[in-house]
Amino acid sequence: MFEATKVGRKVRKQDFKDQIPELRTELLDIQRRLADSGTPVIVLVAGIEAAGKGEVVDRLNEWLDTRGMQTWAFWDESDEDRERPRYWRFWNAMPPRGQISVLFGGWYQDPLERHMHGKCSDRDLEVELRRIEEFERMLSMDGALIVKFWFHMSEKDQKARFKKLSRDDRSRWSMMPEKSKFSEHYERFERLAEHVVSETDTGIAPWYLVEASDTRYRDLAVGKTLLDAIKARLDNPVDGTSTHTARSPSLPDLPDARRTLLDELDLGVTISDEDYTRRLQALQDELGDLAWAAYKAKRSVVLVFEGSDAGGKGGAIRRITNAVDSRLYRTIQVAAPTDEERAHHYLWRFWRHIPRAGRMTIYDRSWYGRVLVERVEGFATEAQWSRSYYEINEFEQQLSDAGIIVVKFWLHISKEEQLRRFKEREETPHKQHKITDEDWRNRDKWEEYTHAVNDMINRTSTHRAPWVVIPGNDKHYARVAVLEAVTKAIRKALKDKKKD
Amino acid sequence: MFEATKVGRKVRKQDFKDQIPELRTELLDIQRRLADSGTPVIVLVAGIEAAGKGEVVDRLNEWLDTRGMQTWAFWDESDEDRERPRYWRFWNAMPPRGQISVLFGGWYQDPLERHMHGKCSDRDLEVELRRIEEFERMLSMDGALIVKFWFHMSEKDQKARFKKLSRDDRSRWSMMPEKSKFSEHYERFERLAEHVVSETDTGIAPWYLVEASDTRYRDLAVGKTLLDAIKARLDNPVDGTSTHTARSPSLPDLPDARRTLLDELDLGVTISDEDYTRRLQALQDELGDLAWAAYKAKRSVVLVFEGSDAGGKGGAIRRITNAVDSRLYRTIQVAAPTDEERAHHYLWRFWRHIPRAGRMTIYDRSWYGRVLVERVEGFATEAQWSRSYYEINEFEQQLSDAGIIVVKFWLHISKEEQLRRFKEREETPHKQHKITDEDWRNRDKWEEYTHAVNDMINRTSTHRAPWVVIPGNDKHYARVAVLEAVTKAIRKALKDKKKD
Repeated sequence: MFEATKVGRKVRKQDFKDQIPELRTELLDIQRRLADSGTPVIVLVAGIEAAGKGEVVDRLNEWLDTRGMQTWAFWDESDEDRERPRYWRFWNAMPPRGQISVLFGGWYQDPLERHMHGKCSDRDLEVELRRIEEFERMLSMDGALIVKFWFHMSEKDQKARFKKLSRDDRSRWSMMPEKSKFSEHYERFERLAEHVVSETDTGIAPWYLVEASDTRYRDLAVGKTLLDAIKARLDNPVDGTSTHTARSPSLPDLPDARRTLLDELDLGVTISDEDYTRRLQALQDELGDLAWAAYKAKRSVVLVFEGSDAGGKGGAIRRITNAVDSRLYRTIQVAAPTDEERAHHYLWRFWRHIPRAGRMTIYDRSWYGRVLVERVEGFATEAQWSRSYYEINEFEQQLSDAGIIVVKFWLHISKEEQLRRFKEREETPHKQHKITDEDWRNRDKWEEYTHAVNDMINRTSTHRAPWVVIPGNDKHYARVAVLEAVTKAIRKALKDKKKD
Repeated sequence: MFEATKVGRKVRKQDFKDQIPELRTELLDIQRRLADSGTPVIVLVAGIEAAGKGEVVDRLNEWLDTRGMQTWAFWDESDEDRERPRYWRFWNAMPPRGQISVLFGGWYQDPLERHMHGKCSDRDLEVELRRIEEFERMLSMDGALIVKFWFHMSEKDQKARFKKLSRDDRSRWSMMPEKSKFSEHYERFERLAEHVVSETDTGIAPWYLVEASDTRYRDLAVGKTLLDAIKARLDNPVDGTSTHTARSPSLPDLPDARRTLLDELDLGVTISDEDYTRRLQALQDELGDLAWAAYKAKRSVVLVFEGSDAGGKGGAIRRITNAVDSRLYRTIQVAAPTDEERAHHYLWRFWRHIPRAGRMTIYDRSWYGRVLVERVEGFATEAQWSRSYYEINEFEQQLSDAGIIVVKFWLHISKEEQLRRFKEREETPHKQHKITDEDWRNRDKWEEYTHAVNDMINRTSTHRAPWVVIPGNDKHYARVAVLEAVTKAIRKALKDKKKD
């Protein structure tokens, strides 16, 4: 998770200046429309330390009409608060219909801090998250629009920010009575945040993950996202039980602000023929042994292959199946659902093929179709695909809880390489069946797919079921990289188990 | 909870025979309509031991067209099941759209049993309930209709049933390889069930609590409830995110089948004038002391008064406020909401008045208006009031978690006594302001209110925030009974605390 908040999205000073007047006008307009509507809006500002949450709140106060909004922070608990049930303060902070409350940290701050400080166990946290979910659902069912921002950045950028802040004695950060020292635990906090965000990222109260390194991008994305979310709700009033808000922030229409994590990928990597043959053989031998070891340890493996059309999924899968005893694995080709499958929940067809203990299932395309092709082609409604990130995370959590090793691959190629492969397929008789009109149609939507992939990885890459993004322009390189990731994951899981 | 499953609802043999043909015809008709719809139906059969869950499943197989339904039990786990994530077996049991799956115990069986056998902690149970909720929500969002039956009866009736079963060697119960011995732990199991049922009783997948002592009533109520639930869904297709199903079973139109727990109440109880004066004084003295003791112990008290119109709420409340130092309590008269209150969630106006540590808030009418007047008068939609049982339980749970002592009173009088009091009010100049046209209108809906009260108590009387039903025909008796319950609750809470 959060991978897409480290890609260096930014907005130049002049672009920022140019975009602000229109944004402010639109925000004030929508606020007027909001006042006449029955919708209360709750904006929750959270994220890693030094992301500038306070600055964002200041911005919102600057841009919005403060007569229709209120800001609430919860860091200094009063006697009045302390002597009542914990949620009393949040009820006080609720906006009346037609108004906006901006909540600093909100109901997330306390559980995050307590868990970081070791004052609350994993189980306690679960109970807390359940309460949060129920609370948000209740508000939402009552018609509230809940917009939650999580600000994030890379460890390097955060360090730089701290350095700058500590030089400035008057910075907010320096003035805070207790610095929580989360800064020293980037990875631990990120892991906790991944859990908290994914568990509370229901379609009803979505989290918008915003890269916070560049303050102009950050603020512009927040302003536009809030604007679009309110607009969507007012244009399409719902009974509060479904949502039409997007799940990724609304991006300024500027190339640097629309970078995705696929832009980060070095597609130029290659491997020599000699190295390929040698590595492939070694890895396949190892995988064969590991598959039997996993069988003996009763650890199942689920591999998911997604990727660009002609990205090399088939070839990579074959290098795995060649290596594993055929009694141990099954490959599931995911095409259009059968009638029977269509008559069930979309996850049903994937649950069916979950391997027995010690076996391996390889999904050639998968449940991620929901947030890729079904999203881009409009086969699923926005409400459907947007809540499926949550459903998918829950699903994979169950696999992982049952001891299943899950690895997910995105095989990526450049647009040019794809064109080359498409043409080659058309020209080679025994490859013609592999290219269809649909492939060409998908190609026309390259950018939409790129953003769908970006969001998908950002939302569903977890410690327990990570995405591995493979540069696929060199097929040999890609196959070796896939085998390396698979063997490493199985090896590690079997070793960790032994340690227990 | 479950109070209303112990009132002796029953159906005579001949009435049962008379009603069956029509019910069966209607069930088959609705099943045909269902087949053409896109709705899968999940019927979950659960409840206390010896309630005859198996018999109910048999009935459904007898009454429904088995070509459109499947029955699933989960008591004997196969290798196939055991070697996969726990929910795999439930996914297998999912009905395709247009069909019905009847699940024996379903996803509730395992957590209930494990907790009863001490194999799962309270925290583990919370995590499990969260998973259940998510699972049901996901299915429901996808369009599934989930109808959950919980069968219950009094301890006495259960004992009688066991006796009968153990005499019959061929009964199901005798044949089961492992008897769970829950029978020996009626109270513990009931308490666990209260928790599990209330925590999973979201508007989306409601529990129907059915008295199971009389098998004819039980089966008829199940048949009619299922029929009505499917009919409601087909007549009013939703996107799966809201529900139009009722929350109490559909009752056969027979007096004995429509008994409520208010029918159980002995309204003839009285107290002599002498006893009244003596008891009142003693209880008020004690309450005055207890209020200060609670203040010192920082334990707050929340008292809720609901009751029939002219039921004597005001008089009872005054006997409390006379006894407590006025610095320690506040009385909240709940009338029509203010503009500001109307602009918030309906619970907001009650949260505002939650007492500080060590104080007492007395609510003269309360959040229960949602499931009483708002339900009966149609001020709240069925979806709104039906999900509020859950919201209210959550709310009171938060109060109780914060150490607040919660007691709720229903002051009940007979219809005749009410008429006498109404007339007296009309004829007594200084009482005329207490009687309005609305009171007379409410009186016309006496039976609807009775059922609303029955459901309310059945759904929201919990160990942590119990309802106390007070027979109010004799005002003096009622006042003493209220004071007794209040002093007892505070005394007990302060004592329990000291033991910790």
